[in-house]
Amino acid sequence: MRRDYIDIGYSPKDTDLICEFHIEPSAGVNFEEAATHMAGESSIDSWTEISTLSPELAAKLKPHVFYLDEESQTVRVAYSEDLFELGSVPQVLSAVAGNIFSMKIVDNLRLQDIAFPGSMLREFKGPNFGLPGIRKLVGVYDRPLIGTIVKPKVGLTSEKHAEVAYNSFAGGCDLVKDDENLTDQKFNGFDRRAELTLKIAEKAEVETGEKKMYLCNITAPTCKEMTRRLNVLKDLGASYAMIDIVPVGWTALQTLREEAEDAGLALHAHRCMHSAYTRNPRHGMSMVLVAKLCRLIGLDQLHIGTVVGKMHGEKHEVLSLRDECVLGKVPADETQHVLAQDWGGLKPMFPVASGGLAPTMIPDLYSIFGKDVIMQFGGGIHAHPMGTAAGATACRQALDASLEGVSMQDYAKNHTELEAAIGKWLKK
Amino acid sequence: MRRDYIDIGYSPKDTDLICEFHIEPSAGVNFEEAATHMAGESSIDSWTEISTLSPELAAKLKPHVFYLDEESQTVRVAYSEDLFELGSVPQVLSAVAGNIFSMKIVDNLRLQDIAFPGSMLREFKGPNFGLPGIRKLVGVYDRPLIGTIVKPKVGLTSEKHAEVAYNSFAGGCDLVKDDENLTDQKFNGFDRRAELTLKIAEKAEVETGEKKMYLCNITAPTCKEMTRRLNVLKDLGASYAMIDIVPVGWTALQTLREEAEDAGLALHAHRCMHSAYTRNPRHGMSMVLVAKLCRLIGLDQLHIGTVVGKMHGEKHEVLSLRDECVLGKVPADETQHVLAQDWGGLKPMFPVASGGLAPTMIPDLYSIFGKDVIMQFGGGIHAHPMGTAAGATACRQALDASLEGVSMQDYAKNHTELEAAIGKWLKK
Repeated sequence: MRRDYIDIGYSPKDTDLICEFHIEPSAGVNFEEAATHMAGESSIDSWTEISTLSPELAAKLKPHVFYLDEESQTVRVAYSEDLFELGSVPQVLSAVAGNIFSMKIVDNLRLQDIAFPGSMLREFKGPNFGLPGIRKLVGVYDRPLIGTIVKPKVGLTSEKHAEVAYNSFAGGCDLVKDDENLTDQKFNGFDRRAELTLKIAEKAEVETGEKKMYLCNITAPTCKEMTRRLNVLKDLGASYAMIDIVPVGWTALQTLREEAEDAGLALHAHRCMHSAYTRNPRHGMSMVLVAKLCRLIGLDQLHIGTVVGKMHGEKHEVLSLRDECVLGKVPADETQHVLAQDWGGLKPMFPVASGGLAPTMIPDLYSIFGKDVIMQFGGGIHAHPMGTAAGATACRQALDASLEGVSMQDYAKNHTELEAAIGKWLKK
Repeated sequence: MRRDYIDIGYSPKDTDLICEFHIEPSAGVNFEEAATHMAGESSIDSWTEISTLSPELAAKLKPHVFYLDEESQTVRVAYSEDLFELGSVPQVLSAVAGNIFSMKIVDNLRLQDIAFPGSMLREFKGPNFGLPGIRKLVGVYDRPLIGTIVKPKVGLTSEKHAEVAYNSFAGGCDLVKDDENLTDQKFNGFDRRAELTLKIAEKAEVETGEKKMYLCNITAPTCKEMTRRLNVLKDLGASYAMIDIVPVGWTALQTLREEAEDAGLALHAHRCMHSAYTRNPRHGMSMVLVAKLCRLIGLDQLHIGTVVGKMHGEKHEVLSLRDECVLGKVPADETQHVLAQDWGGLKPMFPVASGGLAPTMIPDLYSIFGKDVIMQFGGGIHAHPMGTAAGATACRQALDASLEGVSMQDYAKNHTELEAAIGKWLKK
């Protein structure tokens, strides 16, 4: 077998796209062999020497495996930018996250991260609103935002949906969103839900004096229908749309980024389904990379996990995701398999903590994330013993306590909703 | 924890969508608990009882876990069709393949199959050409089709690309396709490649008297650009387009199905990247399900593996994929985790065997797949000792030997190209 691409002395160029992989060769396969074949299959190779490949071409476009560590099963490869359609996430993935996952010579393979060269960053706009734009939209600069997902996930009529949204807004939520599997079902059609819920958001704005945002799910079977739903929202005066990033896929997201800018809408990214390929630490690709691709394309806010809720996600991974969302320059972190990335001025995304959160987790969330996070509650608001509005109020009270540096228990003495939340959810 | 959804006596309705899951509960979690929570999270539940969920609603829309086998870690769930936007693959996946992969209460979870109800099948058109339409297009009814991928994967100029295609056609290929990571790069732009290669396919048709199909890769960053590329092909008189199904995603594919019918083009589906979530037998989702979704949406031909080549894929899995592509009614196969599916008249897809194939594997491929398969070679043609045209000729010769029931070795005595292929590739 060939080892042409092992090139440990190689110093990656500024124009190279760099990938870090975790590689587990299959039985009888040498680590270097697996690395060099993986590098070839993700760029210019076939499985056998071929007559159409000239030596000049091979020299110009060949990948460079410039880092190999068999003990940690880590490999880093530098690819010439000429191999890629630099403005196309699908094309880049078809190369460095394509056939290689299927190769018999590996038992497991994981793409840990991609460091994008400046030439690729320049092909993308990044977030249109991003964290600062969202803060301006909501008019809140000095605290985390509080959001909720209308529950149950599906099944409410559009009228009932709007009512739950109203109670959430009235109680203190800044944002109310649909759940990932609510799109355009018989019991709650997209157009009517959008109309009723946006109208009731306006009512809540007038009554509370706060900005109230409704994030309606425009996940759709075709780009034409996705765009139609986006424009329905625009015509109704919405500021936001939400999308299930993995089920719709990368081409739809790049399409949506263009359409949403024309419509002037911010984009909320729900990451459902990501764990189908991100969860196994030995195979697939990392959520950090998914987050980077979202920032590159230009989603404005993204679910990154909670540390404390119902979904899988270790603290260090969630914090790496947070950093990849918000920092201008991300430093390399070998232990987390994160490559250095200078974001070249692309705006930060607003990180969203969501999944199994209760109001009583807010002090922990605040100490983990600080103020630049959207805390998003589902059952933690709608299952409050006094109802949805009280659940939202309990969240704002718990947040006020954290902001004022007061213990939640002390604050609850004069705040009934928070007291009830503590009674239900705080572990004794 | 709740066990509301365990309902072993339940007999699924014709209108239910049925899923089979493999579930591995995390430490300390009971199998039934994991199953009921998974069923809830993929339909109407939150993680805690919520006030907005009425008992009537819960009764109407609740999932039914009607089969549980802890030993094989298998669970089957019936979901009411009312939970879904039936014409939307992204919405269905956001429910039954969404958040559930992230749940802390499972260590691994795999969606093995979905049995689609008639109401969902009726929302989709299936393949426009399909296997019979492709046969008509190519004018070949009685043998497998022979295809090739232009190699190297990327790096040739458009002129050189067309030359390699010409040699492949002249030598005997029916189909010539781009590789998955060739889209619109500097060295080989889409428009020029399409023009030159389609022109040379016409020349080869005239010279050989056979139909010659070029499958140009229209994988693109946005649906707008994907459609533009599709229409470039249409205007150039092409019959086909190819697409990287996983990198572009489901919304792009449903979009493409509509656009391709308008353009009158057949669709070749390259499955690169699928193994990121299909390869681990304990997590993610199955390739059988990916194939079913492709047939539902209406791709015309799909890579299903080779059994004998470079890519992972056991024989029984490849044959299950073949059956799901071609049969009108697929029987249940418990050992393969395949649910029964009546395709309700949707056309069959043409299965494609591709990945590390040499001409010398043709007798095995023919005995495994019979005549209804597209045998697709890359290095196995372009690395032939006498060059690309001879590689293609060797494939046709090996196929003729199989069709005539003659041993390849005997046939090679009077066929130089096949003899040279045997010399290079046949294991002694």
